[in-house]
Amino acid sequence: MLQYGIIGGGRGSFIADVHIRGLEATRKARLTAGCFSRDPQKASEAAAAYQVDAERSYQTYEDMARKEGARPDGIRFVVIAAPNHIHFPCAKVFLENGISVACDKPVTFSAQEAEALRTLAREKGLLFCVTYTYSGLPALRHIRKLITDGVLGNIRMVAGENVQDWLAGDLSRSDIAPWRMEPEYAGKSNCLADIGSHVEFAVHFTTQLVPERVCCQLDCCGQVLDCNASVMVQYRGGAKGIYWATQVAFGNDNGMRLRIYGDQGSVEWANEQPEIFYLTLAGQPTMRIVKGKQYDTPGYCWKSRLPSGHTEGWYYAFADIYEGFLAALQGDANAYYPSIDDGVRGMRFIDACCESDRAGGVWTETGMD
Amino acid sequence: MLQYGIIGGGRGSFIADVHIRGLEATRKARLTAGCFSRDPQKASEAAAAYQVDAERSYQTYEDMARKEGARPDGIRFVVIAAPNHIHFPCAKVFLENGISVACDKPVTFSAQEAEALRTLAREKGLLFCVTYTYSGLPALRHIRKLITDGVLGNIRMVAGENVQDWLAGDLSRSDIAPWRMEPEYAGKSNCLADIGSHVEFAVHFTTQLVPERVCCQLDCCGQVLDCNASVMVQYRGGAKGIYWATQVAFGNDNGMRLRIYGDQGSVEWANEQPEIFYLTLAGQPTMRIVKGKQYDTPGYCWKSRLPSGHTEGWYYAFADIYEGFLAALQGDANAYYPSIDDGVRGMRFIDACCESDRAGGVWTETGMD
Amino acid sequence: MLQYGIIGGGRGSFIADVHIRGLEATRKARLTAGCFSRDPQKASEAAAAYQVDAERSYQTYEDMARKEGARPDGIRFVVIAAPNHIHFPCAKVFLENGISVACDKPVTFSAQEAEALRTLAREKGLLFCVTYTYSGLPALRHIRKLITDGVLGNIRMVAGENVQDWLAGDLSRSDIAPWRMEPEYAGKSNCLADIGSHVEFAVHFTTQLVPERVCCQLDCCGQVLDCNASVMVQYRGGAKGIYWATQVAFGNDNGMRLRIYGDQGSVEWANEQPEIFYLTLAGQPTMRIVKGKQYDTPGYCWKSRLPSGHTEGWYYAFADIYEGFLAALQGDANAYYPSIDDGVRGMRFIDACCESDRAGGVWTETGMD
Amino acid sequence: MLQYGIIGGGRGSFIADVHIRGLEATRKARLTAGCFSRDPQKASEAAAAYQVDAERSYQTYEDMARKEGARPDGIRFVVIAAPNHIHFPCAKVFLENGISVACDKPVTFSAQEAEALRTLAREKGLLFCVTYTYSGLPALRHIRKLITDGVLGNIRMVAGENVQDWLAGDLSRSDIAPWRMEPEYAGKSNCLADIGSHVEFAVHFTTQLVPERVCCQLDCCGQVLDCNASVMVQYRGGAKGIYWATQVAFGNDNGMRLRIYGDQGSVEWANEQPEIFYLTLAGQPTMRIVKGKQYDTPGYCWKSRLPSGHTEGWYYAFADIYEGFLAALQGDANAYYPSIDDGVRGMRFIDACCESDRAGGVWTETGMD
Repeated sequence: MLQYGIIGGGRGSFIADVHIRGLEATRKARLTAGCFSRDPQKASEAAAAYQVDAERSYQTYEDMARKEGARPDGIRFVVIAAPNHIHFPCAKVFLENGISVACDKPVTFSAQEAEALRTLAREKGLLFCVTYTYSGLPALRHIRKLITDGVLGNIRMVAGENVQDWLAGDLSRSDIAPWRMEPEYAGKSNCLADIGSHVEFAVHFTTQLVPERVCCQLDCCGQVLDCNASVMVQYRGGAKGIYWATQVAFGNDNGMRLRIYGDQGSVEWANEQPEIFYLTLAGQPTMRIVKGKQYDTPGYCWKSRLPSGHTEGWYYAFADIYEGFLAALQGDANAYYPSIDDGVRGMRFIDACCESDRAGGVWTETGMD
Repeated sequence: MLQYGIIGGGRGSFIADVHIRGLEATRKARLTAGCFSRDPQKASEAAAAYQVDAERSYQTYEDMARKEGARPDGIRFVVIAAPNHIHFPCAKVFLENGISVACDKPVTFSAQEAEALRTLAREKGLLFCVTYTYSGLPALRHIRKLITDGVLGNIRMVAGENVQDWLAGDLSRSDIAPWRMEPEYAGKSNCLADIGSHVEFAVHFTTQLVPERVCCQLDCCGQVLDCNASVMVQYRGGAKGIYWATQVAFGNDNGMRLRIYGDQGSVEWANEQPEIFYLTLAGQPTMRIVKGKQYDTPGYCWKSRLPSGHTEGWYYAFADIYEGFLAALQGDANAYYPSIDDGVRGMRFIDACCESDRAGGVWTETGMD
Repeated sequence: MLQYGIIGGGRGSFIADVHIRGLEATRKARLTAGCFSRDPQKASEAAAAYQVDAERSYQTYEDMARKEGARPDGIRFVVIAAPNHIHFPCAKVFLENGISVACDKPVTFSAQEAEALRTLAREKGLLFCVTYTYSGLPALRHIRKLITDGVLGNIRMVAGENVQDWLAGDLSRSDIAPWRMEPEYAGKSNCLADIGSHVEFAVHFTTQLVPERVCCQLDCCGQVLDCNASVMVQYRGGAKGIYWATQVAFGNDNGMRLRIYGDQGSVEWANEQPEIFYLTLAGQPTMRIVKGKQYDTPGYCWKSRLPSGHTEGWYYAFADIYEGFLAALQGDANAYYPSIDDGVRGMRFIDACCESDRAGGVWTETGMD
Repeated sequence: MLQYGIIGGGRGSFIADVHIRGLEATRKARLTAGCFSRDPQKASEAAAAYQVDAERSYQTYEDMARKEGARPDGIRFVVIAAPNHIHFPCAKVFLENGISVACDKPVTFSAQEAEALRTLAREKGLLFCVTYTYSGLPALRHIRKLITDGVLGNIRMVAGENVQDWLAGDLSRSDIAPWRMEPEYAGKSNCLADIGSHVEFAVHFTTQLVPERVCCQLDCCGQVLDCNASVMVQYRGGAKGIYWATQVAFGNDNGMRLRIYGDQGSVEWANEQPEIFYLTLAGQPTMRIVKGKQYDTPGYCWKSRLPSGHTEGWYYAFADIYEGFLAALQGDANAYYPSIDDGVRGMRFIDACCESDRAGGVWTETGMD
């Protein structure tokens, strides 16, 4: 059992518990330290609930980083599941104290900060996971493999979208994460950073395409930060993309959708039925490829924890991310996990989009590797 | 019965027969003249098939326009259902000879030409219908009414797309309209003019939004003309749009789809189930609004020829367009039909998109009224 | 042009006009006589609207049958598009006067009557079409071919349903065909005869399976006749079926759906997207087979009037039925049309179901050929 | 933490681990004993993997029941997640030794056995949970509440189905539970017991309807036990039902679907999108009701662990079942869990269906309370 700690997780928090449940599902890690809340009452409640020793329930993450770094039995990694403005300083201090990091996206407020973390992790010989949720979905992992194997030929066009409505109505009613609309806590972007980042990641994850230039328009719907983002993308090699992320689309839940078109075929996937995707090869009818089926064509088969039609769900997407990260922490050089490289690329995307929008929608270089 | 003539309709042609069937379904017009084909054999076969007198089956449209214009019992209007390059000169000569016009979209090769036709029609006191198919769909007419009535509040965002695959594979196999890929016959654009124009029209038709500026990227997939078009749109008044039209998206048929978001609600419609749409009002579950149902809320009811679940289909969309045009020809000032104003706006959109793309994707004024 | 007459079609009638439009779409038949309404005013209006000579607009169908039968230029066939109780006596008198018949389903009130009509037609050397709508849908024609070609192997199980809601709510609001709920006009069954008959026909049409025994329960929801029918079926050869037809299922339109399972594969089709079906072969992913596509596997291709994604609709289903009937009338021995044999089988099904229900749901022999 | 034990869970087993993960997700129970496998090697591997002390890893369930029943720190309950033939004797011996039981469905081989377990549990003052999975789905819990509140009026008709394909093809390829096809291990039914039981339970769970009589036909597709089951149902009070469960429907995954129609409205739910359902009220458009949304109508709102569009999945359905069972074990008299009463009713359903089929499909009384 690897020991880990968490930043976040006080009563009323949402995502920290998802990380913890994902890690529990691996059965390979144990939560032994935490900085659960600035509120001492909440913090001690959470420590009790998660069975963390009172002495390892810390008031500040700085304190936690130092003390855990100094303990012979200190945590091997920390999960940062707190609002965006915590990410950079918190990750930095843990790295400085010799502790590997798993951090929510967007990993920082800027590409520059993300690069600084990457450099620091490399210098320290530590690992840095950025927990892009969609990397944990078996369907997307299988699509990634099909595309890498060349099944679609050369990619020509990608349409990625994440269409939600939780900011569409009366904002006073929303009980989720009001800090997302405050620049001080969220950074330079709300919608693009929160859910546009999922689109950017998932497209790269499945296609390996690198956005070279972006042209973006953001809309704020009366708020300070954006709640609706449209982006046109030019990838290295000539493929084109169109991304749309919105939180004001009445009638949508978590409408994440990828449509990827090559010169030999296409893949369409939507989060509404996350364990299915549609594959069309040139000259063939569209095929519905389903988790867990035993097709005669081995390349279409795609194993999973549960049989087809039995959804594994969000928590197990986190489990799958952490399976890779834990394996890597234990020395498996081939283990996949979304890393600080993805975080740097993600921040370059956000930076370039925001710069494009500020300049009135001009095409902007992303400067990605 | 109003007498009309047609340009197009020889064996192997497709769209001319759709126009004729639409007009037949109105039971208010009779085909009495035609310039069916440059090939005399095909022309005389078509004349026989459509029961048009041999003397009114013409070798050239110029000849037809002059002679029909001179006859006391000449046609009241001509339907131009021929490749794009015919539209402008043909419409012009019929107008000059005092005959009203119904022409396929895109109405011309440029906005300038479209404006010239508008001016000429006005001078001559003639009517000019541009047969944008989607104006004939009762669902879109009902959505138009709901939006005009303010049901969605102020429109913030529109996502329109037309996703097809008939140019995705081996182009030598496609038996539909190869002229669409030749600039000489199609004009400056293939995909944008062919199906992007449907998106532009349908958004304006339903929302009345006027695109002020566009930012466009076109892709040619190895052809001379575009087969994939992405457009970001800024409308007068501040709403934003994102359009995508493609003919290379393996696995799609005629994937026309409109998603319209206001500050009070939204509408989602897709051509896959053309007689249904989804309406979401702030604070309410999404509602499935179906043709022909008798809801307690009269505003949701929407009458039609056939009961719910009995599709009326494409031919009757043309019938509905022509119902309005025929009524207007007979003096009904309130009759709706898509007009040369729509044609001018459509060409300004295409012109601005092509100009934006040529300039590397810069935001370009549409100059729309 | 074949001359035909119609029974039905006065103002407010619905289905007669659908037949006429279907025949118009063939461009091979002309309406020249009619018994449009018992109401002389309505009858003469309809005659005028359909351009039928006043002298061939008849007050009674008996008069029409006699006089048209006697005319040298009399109609070649009559379309009976009137309430159920008219079908048998009307078809009989036309046959007796030497005129072929196209009649709506259910063709009579009983199997005995249907057999009498079959015998009479044979004796007279006349043709008798029963216009089962679903026989006109190209998708079902293609499924029929695939199954006949053995693509699914031996059929094991069929689930057929037609789920509607037009009798679900306040019955006083329904403006469609109130006679359907009156035994005097509808016969012994409402729901089963109206829409259960579509299920029975469509299953036989696509699979050629013959129901040997049925076990049925009917529910009347407070009416005299049934509005909800469940049937279990045993086919000759051992396959099993389950049919469900209902008019009281809130939230459904015309929910006709066929699911057919063999030992080598399956087909699933639903009227919600009538020009698509799903084909699954053993060991393969489910394939979405779409009208008008050019697949590399010729057996999956399925031509149609319009390209994929352009719905042809209900009127053209009638056109396709009549294309076959007109060809047969003109001597094409291979032309397909749904015939009085289908009508007899359909009535045996209804008779057996009603008998099963009356006896408390016992398995009942259908006595089908 | 409540201590529990498990029967099942050796390498290659599937469902035992699902139970354990569901219990882990509650964070309220700890696995401390097990009879994992008859194979000692597998058993000790499993004990190690689940961190169960070697001394509490038992060779036989009889031994486990006796020894755990005798320990002062013995398990509070046992989870029986082994093939069907184990259920009755195993549950019996644990009850006899004073240990509460959570057992997979079908709970026994017959209603008589199930009643014996119910009697024994009552005599001993122990709790007995039958882990019907669908009782753990929040959507079905919410539907149950709506129907109990009378939102649909009086229920008229229910259509329940569970359509799968894992026995459709080459049976030698299926790696799931071959014992299901052997009477010695599965009991008198395969399909009906395995998945028909889910339909029966879910209909009762949501509607409270009690099947009074059933008429059933089973098909074996060349096997000893059934793989396809059709059932017509008459409920106490007059409502009708039609159930279909099959494992030979090529192209289906876990096609569980409920359609429930009252005289005031309807609910439609399908496992393909398990966190959504469709509600239609008389005179209103169909509404899409989604987990986690904040609607203005409080009755439509339905809270959950994760926001809308973030699937919770199968494991958490088990967690929800166990939450209720654990609460009941700790004395909460209002806690819901599917109990031996559901197990008795379920076995009466299976018994009556098998009897109906054997008798050639006659209507058979279920004898339910």
